[in-house]
Amino acid sequence: MTEENNENQDQNLETKLQKIVYLLQRYKLVEGFVRLQDAPEPELIESIIQKQNLANLRGELDKLHPADIARILEMLPLEDRLIIWRLVKSEYDGEVLLEVSDAVRQSLIEDMDNKELVAAAEQLDADEIADLAPDLPSDVMENVFQALPMEERQQLRAAMSYPEDAVGALMDFDVITVREDVRIEVVLRYLRRLSELPDHTDQLFVVDRDEHLKGVLLLNQLLISDPESIVTQVMTPKVVKFLPDNKAEQATQAFERYDLVTAAVVSPEGKLLGRVTVNAVIDFMREKADLEARNQVGLSEEEDLFAPVWKSVRNRWAWLAINLVTAFIASRVIGLFEDSIEKLVALAALMPIIAGVGGNCGNQTITMIVRALALGHVNQDSTLKLITKEIGVSIVNGIIWGTVVGLFTYAIYQNIQLGLVMALAMLLNLLLAAFVGVLIPITRLKFGRDPALGSSVMITAVTDSGGFFIFLGLATLLLL
Amino acid sequence: MTEENNENQDQNLETKLQKIVYLLQRYKLVEGFVRLQDAPEPELIESIIQKQNLANLRGELDKLHPADIARILEMLPLEDRLIIWRLVKSEYDGEVLLEVSDAVRQSLIEDMDNKELVAAAEQLDADEIADLAPDLPSDVMENVFQALPMEERQQLRAAMSYPEDAVGALMDFDVITVREDVRIEVVLRYLRRLSELPDHTDQLFVVDRDEHLKGVLLLNQLLISDPESIVTQVMTPKVVKFLPDNKAEQATQAFERYDLVTAAVVSPEGKLLGRVTVNAVIDFMREKADLEARNQVGLSEEEDLFAPVWKSVRNRWAWLAINLVTAFIASRVIGLFEDSIEKLVALAALMPIIAGVGGNCGNQTITMIVRALALGHVNQDSTLKLITKEIGVSIVNGIIWGTVVGLFTYAIYQNIQLGLVMALAMLLNLLLAAFVGVLIPITRLKFGRDPALGSSVMITAVTDSGGFFIFLGLATLLLL
Repeated sequence: MTEENNENQDQNLETKLQKIVYLLQRYKLVEGFVRLQDAPEPELIESIIQKQNLANLRGELDKLHPADIARILEMLPLEDRLIIWRLVKSEYDGEVLLEVSDAVRQSLIEDMDNKELVAAAEQLDADEIADLAPDLPSDVMENVFQALPMEERQQLRAAMSYPEDAVGALMDFDVITVREDVRIEVVLRYLRRLSELPDHTDQLFVVDRDEHLKGVLLLNQLLISDPESIVTQVMTPKVVKFLPDNKAEQATQAFERYDLVTAAVVSPEGKLLGRVTVNAVIDFMREKADLEARNQVGLSEEEDLFAPVWKSVRNRWAWLAINLVTAFIASRVIGLFEDSIEKLVALAALMPIIAGVGGNCGNQTITMIVRALALGHVNQDSTLKLITKEIGVSIVNGIIWGTVVGLFTYAIYQNIQLGLVMALAMLLNLLLAAFVGVLIPITRLKFGRDPALGSSVMITAVTDSGGFFIFLGLATLLLL
Repeated sequence: MTEENNENQDQNLETKLQKIVYLLQRYKLVEGFVRLQDAPEPELIESIIQKQNLANLRGELDKLHPADIARILEMLPLEDRLIIWRLVKSEYDGEVLLEVSDAVRQSLIEDMDNKELVAAAEQLDADEIADLAPDLPSDVMENVFQALPMEERQQLRAAMSYPEDAVGALMDFDVITVREDVRIEVVLRYLRRLSELPDHTDQLFVVDRDEHLKGVLLLNQLLISDPESIVTQVMTPKVVKFLPDNKAEQATQAFERYDLVTAAVVSPEGKLLGRVTVNAVIDFMREKADLEARNQVGLSEEEDLFAPVWKSVRNRWAWLAINLVTAFIASRVIGLFEDSIEKLVALAALMPIIAGVGGNCGNQTITMIVRALALGHVNQDSTLKLITKEIGVSIVNGIIWGTVVGLFTYAIYQNIQLGLVMALAMLLNLLLAAFVGVLIPITRLKFGRDPALGSSVMITAVTDSGGFFIFLGLATLLLL
């Protein structure tokens, strides 16, 4: 937490960031100067001025929360980023590594030696180490593993065994457990003996001798209840709980729906394994939203803003290749009708309108359906109803916008038949867009795929090639 | 919270939902049968069987959390939705109205009379009533307002005065305050006298006589500290706090960065006004993500899945109109080159490739930049660096994909010059896409606009018209 005396939270942070960037520039300026000037005693100048500059920078950094340091590192080009990174106090290393994006994390880890990495990892909890594990060299992980006490070793092994989108990957092990037959007063005394409670503790978990979860004791309940009463009288037996194999998305929705702060994770036999906290859920939501935004345009990973060009090219190439293939197909569809275009060249100028508006309508439909699927608002029976409704919308849109493009065409080319063909092609392509726009995400889901991923590219491919075919085909049939 | 005895959270819920849909179908079937058959005593049959069916349905609904009822209502077509809505017990009305989407809320409110609406609103807290206010008829709001005690009236007025994207709109008034000079034991006794603590209470707010915020007393600290110590010794004076006029997005980022559960909202003079809870933040995040997804394709509001066709058309029309205008412009750009196309009809088939790939690349750039802007990773100095980097990526992509399309063109049309023109046009359009892809979101932000909103449509317009112009222009200059 940061001290904010009645000041705007963000502006305060912004000021600190600017100060650091300013100090960094000064440091680099002097360094450049010393090198350029070929000064008689460069080491001396450097040692006096630069030591002061670095000390100032370090002082500013020490005042920041690790998450804010992470943000600064994200903002800086690689060279500057590493200057700052080397100044961060080593107790923060682990947390900063957790906070930065995958891309920036790689650049930081490459700058550290194995000893530093092991030290950084050892500051973290088992579940946090598991989050870093994919980016750490295997010999570092080996050392970290050896250094852990037995219990945490097991936890680390467990945490690493779950796929990224499972509840198990969000789970941590910071649970406080109590027995159901003790008095509240005893619980209070037990807590008072602890040096601190885990972050986000809003409830204690009530378990029996075999660690089976019996209920939860909400701190809110604990605080208002009579110290003489027994845990069973005060605890909540109805508990929202998850299996580690449940989808993380499921947990997210439960947290949203039931306004949870923490929730228990249990084994299939009902043994308490750990808990999920709301901050893990928020991080997951943010990452998922990012992933979806990137997927829509085919960025395969989080990209370091200042990544080398070749890395960026690699990150983006797959989608462009797919896009190119669909563009080639559309191009060949047009190629089929080259004779028609030669006879009536206006067709070439008009055809992108049909394809473009079709793509836009199709994407509107897909966005609606994907959202409804994600929130669980669609069931088996609704598919037909949804198609019917989207077809209805398309007919109305087709008539309205078909008329508009028909009139536009007539105004420019003074050709009534051509205007009618445009209007009809528009209507037909919008119907195609609606039909495919409902079917693509629902079919993808049925086959266990993510309905959002790639749907936009698919619908655009269909409405492009389909739109060209419909329009040029109609024109060939009716006009030539 | 729902009871889940070691069962998969979601499957359990799914089963309950299916049961309700099944009961609803049965109810509707009997009702249809009675009407069709013209049975001798329809009222009798109806009264016996249907009363039973309705009672079963009501029984199932009573077992559900309001958020789950909201989800069922979202899933159902209007007619079925209203049957269920009338069966929901009235104590839940307010909470269900809060949980459903704007579109579905309207359909539910239209089905209620003023008395029911007033009763529903009165179950809610002032900040929740403020969330419903825009959808309630003004005479209902007047009645609700009159019925509130003075303090809540002021709160309601305050809550309604903030724009939707301000911290004030996320704020609630459920704060517990303590004085700094009392003993912990007194605080504990004070809490024990309360019948319950507000949801999400993870800290008490320490204020002076004039309600100025002095610090917070974390429950986690409270529980482990010596009952004889004084609040000042135990409290945390460094507090993350917001002004009600701060941007809600700012609060979101602070909650993410510092892993908060609640945070104080204070007046510019430092007086405690209320608090923001993590569940309000999660709801805001979800709504914002939804809004962005809709904005990308131009859906102006959340759309009821089963909205009447004309409502959906209206919801979608603005974007289609803009899209049509840009398509008309692109069409006129092509129109400029009709002579060239007449001479070399292959141009018509090839031009969508240049435009399409350009649009894809531009959208990749925009997505990266928008995300970096949202996370605050871009500062003044980086604009030039980002443009340089994206131009670099475009040059590499342009050379790779330019070669591919050049070869494709040569393979199909056996025309080397045409292939070279394709390759060159591709390179130039990708450069255009990179340049505009960085500039659009950064310029929008500079003028205080949302960088995400509409950026995708703008870049596509530029790469379409620009791509056609570049390709057809080059072909006219070099080939004809």
